[in-house]
Amino acid sequence: MRRAIELAARGLGSTSPNPVVGCVITDAAGTVVGEGWHERAGGPHAEVHALRAAGGAARGGTAYVTLEPCNHTGRTGPCAQALAEAGVTRVVYAVPDPNPQASGGAATLRAAGIKAEGGFLEAEAAAGNAAWLTSVRLGRPHVTWKYAATLDGRSAAADGSSRWITGPESRADVHRLRAEADAVLVGGGTLRADDPHLAVRGVEGATQPLRVALDTRAGLPATARVLDDAAPTLLVVGEDADTRHLPDGVDLLRLPLHEGRIAVHDLLAQLYGRGVRSVFLEGGPTLAGAFLAAGAVDRVIGYLAPALLGSGPAALADAGITNIARAVRLDITEAVRVGTDLRITAVPVSEAVPTPTAPKEH
Amino acid sequence: MRRAIELAARGLGSTSPNPVVGCVITDAAGTVVGEGWHERAGGPHAEVHALRAAGGAARGGTAYVTLEPCNHTGRTGPCAQALAEAGVTRVVYAVPDPNPQASGGAATLRAAGIKAEGGFLEAEAAAGNAAWLTSVRLGRPHVTWKYAATLDGRSAAADGSSRWITGPESRADVHRLRAEADAVLVGGGTLRADDPHLAVRGVEGATQPLRVALDTRAGLPATARVLDDAAPTLLVVGEDADTRHLPDGVDLLRLPLHEGRIAVHDLLAQLYGRGVRSVFLEGGPTLAGAFLAAGAVDRVIGYLAPALLGSGPAALADAGITNIARAVRLDITEAVRVGTDLRITAVPVSEAVPTPTAPKEH
Ligand SMILES: NC(=O)c1ccc[n+]([C@@H]2O[C@H](COP(=O)([O-])OP(=O)(O)OC[C@H]3O[C@@H](n4cnc5c(N)ncnc54)[C@H](OP(=O)(O)O)[C@@H]3O)[C@@H](O)[C@H]2O)c1
Ligand SMILES: NC(=O)c1ccc[n+]([C@@H]2O[C@H](COP(=O)([O-])OP(=O)(O)OC[C@H]3O[C@@H](n4cnc5c(N)ncnc54)[C@H](OP(=O)(O)O)[C@@H]3O)[C@@H](O)[C@H]2O)c1
Repeated sequence: MRRAIELAARGLGSTSPNPVVGCVITDAAGTVVGEGWHERAGGPHAEVHALRAAGGAARGGTAYVTLEPCNHTGRTGPCAQALAEAGVTRVVYAVPDPNPQASGGAATLRAAGIKAEGGFLEAEAAAGNAAWLTSVRLGRPHVTWKYAATLDGRSAAADGSSRWITGPESRADVHRLRAEADAVLVGGGTLRADDPHLAVRGVEGATQPLRVALDTRAGLPATARVLDDAAPTLLVVGEDADTRHLPDGVDLLRLPLHEGRIAVHDLLAQLYGRGVRSVFLEGGPTLAGAFLAAGAVDRVIGYLAPALLGSGPAALADAGITNIARAVRLDITEAVRVGTDLRITAVPVSEAVPTPTAPKEH
Repeated sequence: MRRAIELAARGLGSTSPNPVVGCVITDAAGTVVGEGWHERAGGPHAEVHALRAAGGAARGGTAYVTLEPCNHTGRTGPCAQALAEAGVTRVVYAVPDPNPQASGGAATLRAAGIKAEGGFLEAEAAAGNAAWLTSVRLGRPHVTWKYAATLDGRSAAADGSSRWITGPESRADVHRLRAEADAVLVGGGTLRADDPHLAVRGVEGATQPLRVALDTRAGLPATARVLDDAAPTLLVVGEDADTRHLPDGVDLLRLPLHEGRIAVHDLLAQLYGRGVRSVFLEGGPTLAGAFLAAGAVDRVIGYLAPALLGSGPAALADAGITNIARAVRLDITEAVRVGTDLRITAVPVSEAVPTPTAPKEH
């Protein structure tokens, strides 16, 4: 199963709106005869890849799958049936499928006389699919907020200079995380201050994420780097924004303003509707504060540079919290060196334990 | 030598103005026959303790010492001579003694026909003696700045509430570090806001550090907790401060004001003169900024709580740095969990490599 989880991770960033899934098939004697993973949305599921590789050797064998095999006929046909037809006699899966459209795979397998057992290495497999599971549970994309700051929490110096707070290894790491996300998001302040490009560079075989820029009054110039053709871009503006200066063909999303702002949940609902299951929020501080206030931060990744400034803007601005008792409490799930920086990953305490989405089968 | 370094560490916090030193003696066959460490200022040196334990077995043996044995006759007599008299034939030491009063120990040993070799595990031993070595080199106490903050760098919430940002394990850890320091220091803002006690609690056998409070106008009330008798206290005030409301017997240090402030280096020089070799600076942000601006922070220990606030005072205030190129760059030497918090230790890049203070002997 651990191998299947490894295989699943290869699909991160290119399977949305589907989950990542890995599958390993062993023959009757327990020898691995086929491996596969879900490579991209619309392509064959992990089980199909693995069954193809196994061929006749799957007969009488076992399939290890990170997610309960699907039962519905989508673009690729139900996997539960494919496993049955290949003569697999036992299916071991990690996470029960929480998607109402797809569930029932285990029941179908059992009806076909196949032993189906769920819950193996469930937490580990669920962590690998965190974004997709969160999006199914909440009906909105999973959001990772990323920031870079000095040890004293500054995201720039007092004069606004911030290149480079963190080192080259951290910047490369950010590109890797961008590639794993369906969409990369920034606010108007960052758009105006930094003219960011937001495309993935230096990650082999990466699927470019959708670049989403929040620009209430469509204030960005037609020459903004985010509008180039290195990756798709969605420009989110207020309903009444004047966009006549923008080049033809810019993908525009007009949303109503609430007190002059685009509502975080309106935005997320729209992105979800477009198949986005994971958002990589790259700031700035104001937008990050709005997401935190809206309860829409599922994971925090901070790159802490070994430096002190003593002044300059904080990495996170107002989130409506004034008393320490109201602080958003997190669990630090990882703290590792990236070059000379420290990368800290944390999840809100309430999300630290994956909510079981279906009863376990064992 | 590793064992000797471990032994040395037991003296941290109680040997100033002397260094911590550990010593292991083996007999002619290489068996450990004596161990010792410098336990407190005025008490016997490590070598003397170890020689006493070894007795006649030291004859023909080797002494492993973390610091070059002293050569001067202080309160306890020179160790070089004691080693020679005990018949030790080889002395291996880690760090050459940078103290002009004490150096020459190796030369004395050699003159007595003893093999003396320095530089073994020097970096490790120097790290254990960092505070003392820094103080000898710079003629001022070594300064550790400690702070507690949320992941987004806030040391309190917007309404000033800060109990408790960090967890009980971090608070206990702070008491351990206080016990290792000769003095604990806070600024007037913290004194007025928190009425801190600053004594060591919960550390067995701890020597209470000197509590130093910087209070320009002697604004603290006679009932301030820092004035109780749990530990000695030094109240540092401006030359003209009116201190008539304070209880008799308060140890007062009057210093000239520069633009209304006590100068960091004046303060450190005075503390050095009183035998203080290590200062544990507990804030607040304003005083920490002044120390950073004065180049008087030798080590940073940050307790990062897994929480986000989005507003509230930063852990570090103005240090006169406005551009990112001027940021104080550090090396992170350690990042470990303490309870649910993360403790990050860092040293200024220029101090990361201990400056060799004397030529190596091998
Ligand atoms: N170190 C880091 O990790 C990092 C990362 C990114 C940015 N930065 C720095 O952050 C600075 C910019 O940050 P910022 O805080 O000024 O701006 P920001 O967070 O990038 O953008 C905030 C802007 O987004 C628009 N917006 C629309 N709906 C919103 C909503 N619901 N909530 C919040 N904002 C909404 C508003 O601008 P409009 O009304 O104009 O649309 C708002 O002013 C730059 O200096 C950049 O370099 C640092
Ligand atoms: N989270 C943490 O790690 C932590 C630690 C400590 C404190 N705090 C919080 O920090 C807040 C207080 O911090 P603060 O920044 O207001 O005050 P502070 O740094 O504690 O003290 C600064 C004061 O010290 C005096 N001072 C004298 N000479 C100075 C010099 N050369 N440089 C700087 N200050 C000098 C001045 O006050 P006078 O002129 O009145 O003497 C100055 O206003 C409190 O809310 C406290 O809870 C947090």
